[in-house]
Amino acid sequence: MEKTFSVRTNSHDQMIDITSEISNWLRENQLTNGIVIVSSMHTTAGITVNENADPDVKTDFLRRLDEVYPWNHPKDLHMEGNTAAHLKTSTVGHAQTLILSDGKLILGTWQGVYFCEFDGPRNRKYHVKVITD
Amino acid sequence: MEKTFSVRTNSHDQMIDITSEISNWLRENQLTNGIVIVSSMHTTAGITVNENADPDVKTDFLRRLDEVYPWNHPKDLHMEGNTAAHLKTSTVGHAQTLILSDGKLILGTWQGVYFCEFDGPRNRKYHVKVITD
Amino acid sequence: MEKTFSVRTNSHDQMIDITSEISNWLRENQLTNGIVIVSSMHTTAGITVNENADPDVKTDFLRRLDEVYPWNHPKDLHMEGNTAAHLKTSTVGHAQTLILSDGKLILGTWQGVYFCEFDGPRNRKYHVKVITD
Repeated sequence: MEKTFSVRTNSHDQMIDITSEISNWLRENQLTNGIVIVSSMHTTAGITVNENADPDVKTDFLRRLDEVYPWNHPKDLHMEGNTAAHLKTSTVGHAQTLILSDGKLILGTWQGVYFCEFDGPRNRKYHVKVITD
Repeated sequence: MEKTFSVRTNSHDQMIDITSEISNWLRENQLTNGIVIVSSMHTTAGITVNENADPDVKTDFLRRLDEVYPWNHPKDLHMEGNTAAHLKTSTVGHAQTLILSDGKLILGTWQGVYFCEFDGPRNRKYHVKVITD
Repeated sequence: MEKTFSVRTNSHDQMIDITSEISNWLRENQLTNGIVIVSSMHTTAGITVNENADPDVKTDFLRRLDEVYPWNHPKDLHMEGNTAAHLKTSTVGHAQTLILSDGKLILGTWQGVYFCEFDGPRNRKYHVKVITD
């Protein structure tokens, strides 16, 4: 079972919590046990698992990544000017694997799944595939 | 087949080799072929695969990550003060996927699986799930 | 189905596009649906998914990683002197999981799979394992 999801980002850097979207789709399709691969279909947007409670974590997270990989860099050659977004994507990862057990994603109390936009706003896609036991 | 493992960390930043714990559990359950997902259930602790020989690699690794994501940062908003640990977790990844073949994890000579504590000491959990062929 | 592939790197830092090699092997073996784990068997070389079009992205990517994790560091203890390569490997990841659907890897227009050498030139290996539906 698999599906391509669309997501509209509305700022340059953004973390969008997609946990519910994925959980709902798993439930609707009565998928209860296995693993779930969530994969961004872009080179300047990735997927990560991180805190779903305090929104300040997202603000800090995106600002810190910008400090490590600043948008403007005098040595960058890539004409599109979004080299930093490529680095951020590989740092968080283009995809993450989740565990599905008895109808629930195995996530800790504070863990959420995020689509990470690093060069928005854009129309984006991510693909979800389930391997059942 | 799956299991939640507990791990007690005893310092602020720490890499704990969990390769044997996972390998032993696979052997005890006669799991021989498939893939193994190892997933931290925390937002300030992750999983990585890295060198298992010279302990200096761990020391260097943790110190270098601290330099890239310093603990104290004047712009951080997150009240808990552990923003750096969130970034380190997404950088190494909350989970890793291993390959199991003929009863052995497909790891190179120097590769070990590490539980990475970035905000300890704490009682932690990681979940292991096997998908067999 | 699984296979160990060999790759010869010819510079110190290098990203080698292995997408075709993997796709061809999948097609030759008539593997059409499932997931594909691509795993480096080294602690100073990893796997990432990133841009396959403008070669300047690779140049920028490797130079930026070197700036974040400089090769020479006065505090490094590891005798081999390649601590930076260990950090780069855990940052991009030792392995990536791809989705295979109707005979094609689910990758966006600009996504390619890269073997990332961070301490070359060397003879390297990566292992590919497919879990079919």
